[in-house]
Amino acid sequence: MKTVVVAGNPKPSSRTLDAGVRLAGLLGAEPPEVLDVIALGPGLLGWGDPEVKHAVELVAGADLAVFASPTFKATYTGLLKLFLDQFATGEGLRGVVAVPLMLGAGPAHALAPELLLKPVLVELGATCPAPGLYQLDSSYDTDSSAADYVRRWGPALTASIGSR
Amino acid sequence: MKTVVVAGNPKPSSRTLDAGVRLAGLLGAEPPEVLDVIALGPGLLGWGDPEVKHAVELVAGADLAVFASPTFKATYTGLLKLFLDQFATGEGLRGVVAVPLMLGAGPAHALAPELLLKPVLVELGATCPAPGLYQLDSSYDTDSSAADYVRRWGPALTASIGSR
Amino acid sequence: MKTVVVAGNPKPSSRTLDAGVRLAGLLGAEPPEVLDVIALGPGLLGWGDPEVKHAVELVAGADLAVFASPTFKATYTGLLKLFLDQFATGEGLRGVVAVPLMLGAGPAHALAPELLLKPVLVELGATCPAPGLYQLDSSYDTDSSAADYVRRWGPALTASIGSR
Amino acid sequence: MKTVVVAGNPKPSSRTLDAGVRLAGLLGAEPPEVLDVIALGPGLLGWGDPEVKHAVELVAGADLAVFASPTFKATYTGLLKLFLDQFATGEGLRGVVAVPLMLGAGPAHALAPELLLKPVLVELGATCPAPGLYQLDSSYDTDSSAADYVRRWGPALTASIGSR
Repeated sequence: MKTVVVAGNPKPSSRTLDAGVRLAGLLGAEPPEVLDVIALGPGLLGWGDPEVKHAVELVAGADLAVFASPTFKATYTGLLKLFLDQFATGEGLRGVVAVPLMLGAGPAHALAPELLLKPVLVELGATCPAPGLYQLDSSYDTDSSAADYVRRWGPALTASIGSR
Repeated sequence: MKTVVVAGNPKPSSRTLDAGVRLAGLLGAEPPEVLDVIALGPGLLGWGDPEVKHAVELVAGADLAVFASPTFKATYTGLLKLFLDQFATGEGLRGVVAVPLMLGAGPAHALAPELLLKPVLVELGATCPAPGLYQLDSSYDTDSSAADYVRRWGPALTASIGSR
Repeated sequence: MKTVVVAGNPKPSSRTLDAGVRLAGLLGAEPPEVLDVIALGPGLLGWGDPEVKHAVELVAGADLAVFASPTFKATYTGLLKLFLDQFATGEGLRGVVAVPLMLGAGPAHALAPELLLKPVLVELGATCPAPGLYQLDSSYDTDSSAADYVRRWGPALTASIGSR
Repeated sequence: MKTVVVAGNPKPSSRTLDAGVRLAGLLGAEPPEVLDVIALGPGLLGWGDPEVKHAVELVAGADLAVFASPTFKATYTGLLKLFLDQFATGEGLRGVVAVPLMLGAGPAHALAPELLLKPVLVELGATCPAPGLYQLDSSYDTDSSAADYVRRWGPALTASIGSR
C-alpha cells in the first residue's frame, strides 16, 4: 500500500506533518512518503514547475493519502489549497483514498475537515469514505483521537483501497 | 444486498422518490424498499412514534441507502432532516453505505448534496464513499447523470458495502 | 423596532427559546414576539395551513428576527427548516435583519450557525450583517457570549435595520 | 468611501479582477484601489514581507472591499486564501464591509461564494450584509448580474458602511 502524507503548514516540519505521519502509521503504512508543501516554494504560485509537477504525480499515484492542515481562519490553509489547485478537477485524485485531517488550537473548528476540506478532495476525484478528522494541536500526540478514528474507520478506508 | 430509498419530499410519490428508486436500481437493487417520509405524518414532530421508529430501523438495517431530497432554499428539505433527527448521532446509520441525492430546478444548487446533505449522513455514522449527486428534476429520468454516476462511483459504493 | 424570536426546538419552551429571547432583549427589543415553531403542529407538514401562514407573515414583517435552533446532527433542526421552507425564496425574509443562533452541548459544532444556518436565511432574502452565534446550552444564561456578541455586532445589526 | 478590489487569480490582470472593478464601480467607487494578489509574489508564502504587510494594511483600511476569486476545485483559490491567511483572526477586516465575489465557467458552483468564501471574510471580522455573488466568466461583463446585485443589495452595503 503506497501512502503519502501531504502537510499544508507554512511552517516546515510542523506538528501538522507529524500528526499526518502518525495517522498514516496507524493506518498501516510505515513509513509513508511525506510531502511538506512549503518545501515546494514559489513554484506553487504558477503552473508547470517541475518539482511541483513531480509532487502532484507522487500524490496522484498513492493508494492512501492523508491531507493535513492547520486551521487558519476556521478552515484549511491557503498553502494547502495552492497545492490542491495544481490537480486536475475530477481526475487528479482519482483512485486515491483520501483522509482530510485538520489540527486546531481549540475544539470550535471541529466541523472544518468534514464541511470544508473534504469537499475539495472529492472535487478532485478522491474517494473519501471516512469523516474528516479534527485534532487538537496541543494533544494530538498523546490523546486517543487518532487511535479511535482508526479503530472506527480503518476498515472502511482499507475496503476502499481494495476497490481500485 | 438490502437497499432502501428515503424520499424527503413533502409531496407524496414525487419525482424525488422516483429518482431515488432509479438510482438504487442502477446500483443493483431491484426493487429497493421505499420510504416516503411524508407518509409517516405528524409522528415525525415528536419522539417515540412506533411507525417512525419502525422506519428508522428499516433504514438503519440497510446495506445501501439513497437519501433523496428536492432542493428547498438551496439545501435539503426540513422534512428529510426531521426524519434524520430521529437517528442516534454517530451510530444511527453505522454500517450503512449512504448516497446523498438532491434534485433541483436548475444547476445553481449543484454543490448542496456534497456540502450540505452528506455531512448530516456522516454525522449519523454512515459511510459515504461517493460524492453527493445532483440531478435536474426536469431531466433526471432521461439524461445520463445517474448512469454516469453509477459507472464512476458504483465500484466504490460496492466495495464499501463489502467492508461491513 | 419590531422583533421576533423563532425557536426551532421540538421541545416547547426550551432553553433555545430562552436564549433567543435573551439575545433579542440585549439587542434592544423588550419584549419580542415569540414563535415557538413546535406549537404550529402538523400544519407544518403541508402547505396552506392558516396558522402557519400567519406565523410566516409575523416573521416576514419583523425588523429584526432571531432564528434559534438547538444543534441536531451537527446542524439546525429539521423542525426549524420545516418552518423556513414555508417562506418564498429570495423574498420571504426580504427586509428582515436576521441573526442565526444555535445552542449546543459542546463547542465542537460552533461553525454551524455561520456555515449552515445563515445561508438558509440569506437564501430567503434576509439581511445577515453579523456572524452566526453559537452558545453552550449549559451556560448561555450565565456566560458572557450574548453580551460580547451584542457589544461587537449590535451596531452593525442596528445600522442594517435602519437601511430598510 | 475608500474601496479596494482584491483579486485572487494566479493570472495577472484577469477577468476576475475586471469583474471586481466593475462591481466596485457600480457600488459607487470610481476608481477603486486594486490589489492583484499574484503581484505580491513569494512573500505570500511566509510572514513579515513588507509588501504583503502593506497590502494587508491597504485592505484593512478600506470602507468597502470586494474579494474576487475564480472558482478552482469548486471553491476560491489557494492564492486568495494565502493572502487572507495574513490577516488577524476576528480583527483583520474589522470595520470593512466585504463582498464575496466568485467567477466560474458554469452555474454549478453558484453556492460557493456564500457557503465558502463569505465565512472566511466573516472569520476575519468583516461585515458581510449581502449574499455572495457568483458570475459567469463568459458573460459577467455583458449580463445583468452585477447591476441586479447592486440594485438589490447596494442599500444594505451602504448602510453597513455608514455604521462604522
